[in-house]
Amino acid sequence: MDMLAEKLRKIYQNSGADALFIETDYLRRYLTGFYATDGAVLLDGKSCRFVADLRYYEAAARALDGSGIDVVEGGMREALELASAYKTLGVPFDEISLAAARRLEAAGHTLVDCAPALRRATLIKIPEEIGYIQRACDIAEDAFSALLPQIKEGMAEYEVAALLEYEMRARGASGTSFDTIVAFGANGSVPHHETGTDRLKFGDPVLIDFGCKYEGYCSDCTRTFLFGDDKKHEKFKQIYAHVLKAHLLVLETLRAGMTGREGDAIAREYLRKYDLAQYFTHSLGHGIGLLIHEQPVLSPRGEEVLTDGMVFSDEPGVYLAGELGVRIEDSVKMEGGIAVSFMKGNKNLIVL
Amino acid sequence: MDMLAEKLRKIYQNSGADALFIETDYLRRYLTGFYATDGAVLLDGKSCRFVADLRYYEAAARALDGSGIDVVEGGMREALELASAYKTLGVPFDEISLAAARRLEAAGHTLVDCAPALRRATLIKIPEEIGYIQRACDIAEDAFSALLPQIKEGMAEYEVAALLEYEMRARGASGTSFDTIVAFGANGSVPHHETGTDRLKFGDPVLIDFGCKYEGYCSDCTRTFLFGDDKKHEKFKQIYAHVLKAHLLVLETLRAGMTGREGDAIAREYLRKYDLAQYFTHSLGHGIGLLIHEQPVLSPRGEEVLTDGMVFSDEPGVYLAGELGVRIEDSVKMEGGIAVSFMKGNKNLIVL
Repeated sequence: MDMLAEKLRKIYQNSGADALFIETDYLRRYLTGFYATDGAVLLDGKSCRFVADLRYYEAAARALDGSGIDVVEGGMREALELASAYKTLGVPFDEISLAAARRLEAAGHTLVDCAPALRRATLIKIPEEIGYIQRACDIAEDAFSALLPQIKEGMAEYEVAALLEYEMRARGASGTSFDTIVAFGANGSVPHHETGTDRLKFGDPVLIDFGCKYEGYCSDCTRTFLFGDDKKHEKFKQIYAHVLKAHLLVLETLRAGMTGREGDAIAREYLRKYDLAQYFTHSLGHGIGLLIHEQPVLSPRGEEVLTDGMVFSDEPGVYLAGELGVRIEDSVKMEGGIAVSFMKGNKNLIVL
Repeated sequence: MDMLAEKLRKIYQNSGADALFIETDYLRRYLTGFYATDGAVLLDGKSCRFVADLRYYEAAARALDGSGIDVVEGGMREALELASAYKTLGVPFDEISLAAARRLEAAGHTLVDCAPALRRATLIKIPEEIGYIQRACDIAEDAFSALLPQIKEGMAEYEVAALLEYEMRARGASGTSFDTIVAFGANGSVPHHETGTDRLKFGDPVLIDFGCKYEGYCSDCTRTFLFGDDKKHEKFKQIYAHVLKAHLLVLETLRAGMTGREGDAIAREYLRKYDLAQYFTHSLGHGIGLLIHEQPVLSPRGEEVLTDGMVFSDEPGVYLAGELGVRIEDSVKMEGGIAVSFMKGNKNLIVL
């Protein structure tokens, strides 16, 4: 409660607006802790009001009782009426639609971009948020362990995804953080392969990129392994060893004070030594929170300085088009000046 | 292919812009048939170009080969360079962010709202789209049938949701259309109850609102039933019978040419006769397509005239706060001037 009030106070002060007017679902959740598919949050220096229509009013009033956040029954019209008491409104320019922005401007409001104030707050996770992400990671990792013995020859990619998603859901995840990627064989060489109907054959490499949500917070994890060893996998094993080394090197050597660019370079420079950097065709990592992709960015263009409380992925990969792909990914937090993985299992190559 | 070209030509002509510039994921899919989490589509009178970065380039080029859509490798910078050839750009004002709109305006473009042109196109589903929605509905309905015998006393709401989602996924759904709602007992009286940890007891009413996606298209279905009959359910059964009658009356009497308001009134006026209309606290229905909530709206404010090719939900409900809730929902299409459900099963009250 005090932490919530303090968080809201800072965001309000940093916004420079008379009030914040928030229509985006995950930001409403961030500001109030309550999730609904619809509604508006109005935050000024004295109060935080959640405007919910009849579908959500009862649940919101119950959930937010005693939180210091007032629940007001109404739709967008009522929300706009409440907002009319303020001249400048803080809205996130990267989230609000042009239509919604023009509606507010037509009502006489001056719009101020509150995205920087929100970004500054969401970039550093408070202990409660770290706890939710840890839970989302634990669920994902346990579900993956439960999945492995269920994988059988002849299964389709989507069936493996279905089993894994069930195992996450059955452990209390509210859903996936993104569409689960299951890629058999050469499909792994497409970094964002769309899970399909290809069936598993003995000797196939398998790449699974997955994650789930707990209390709205995401986990993100990728594992690559072999379904049986047909003894034709020398190249795969070499590349796996290099990707794993790059992944672990980041965990071992990343320090608070480095930029996202410097973090990315740890993996990229290691792979460059083995002529593999040109096959590492994406960023090392992205921030993780209520969104699966947020700040900070760990890439050659990542200027953010990494500090305690930030959460992001460490996911080097090597892709040989039409041939094979290896990616190894943990969700990671900065804590005590170093990078600490949320994942506990070891990542030596699994051969099922 | 010809149908796609014709669809694109009409949207382009109706937009009144020199070119459309589309960054929204489901609209990129609508225009090209290809799904990616990132990218931009540039549509003018002569060509449709999909700008995809390295993560998606290979897959997009393969998927769109021969479709008449050109795949260009690049990120947002390359997309903006291509767009610089046009003065007025059509963007959907209700989807584009204020930040993205200002970026285009700063580059000298005049923005034109292409949402009406897109809306006019997406409102009427072509046979291919109807086929995808039918498949999404078949999967949902089959999965529900497979779920029922697995429901046991003591299960948590989220466990039932996990099983149902698994059954949908294992039948080829790419995911859910929205967070599955499973509500035991009085939780059913909250129309958008958040699936939680409550456990199933003998005699509980169970409300499940669920749907899945197939090729991006959604299904939406709600079933309410009894987990054992403890003989205290006279009121529940009466209300169930009335909600079912209201639901079926819509299917029987809705006709092309009526407005969404008139459709809604069929159910609302029926419930009013039994003093239940005041407990029907939401709209009768919403359009269904690539989005789970789109046009047309069937509510007291629905002015859209319903015509063949439209797809929407028929979902009357009655909610007695803290006591019970009943909702019965099918996904429905207008075809041959009448409303035809995508769902095949009968909806008489099930007692497990």
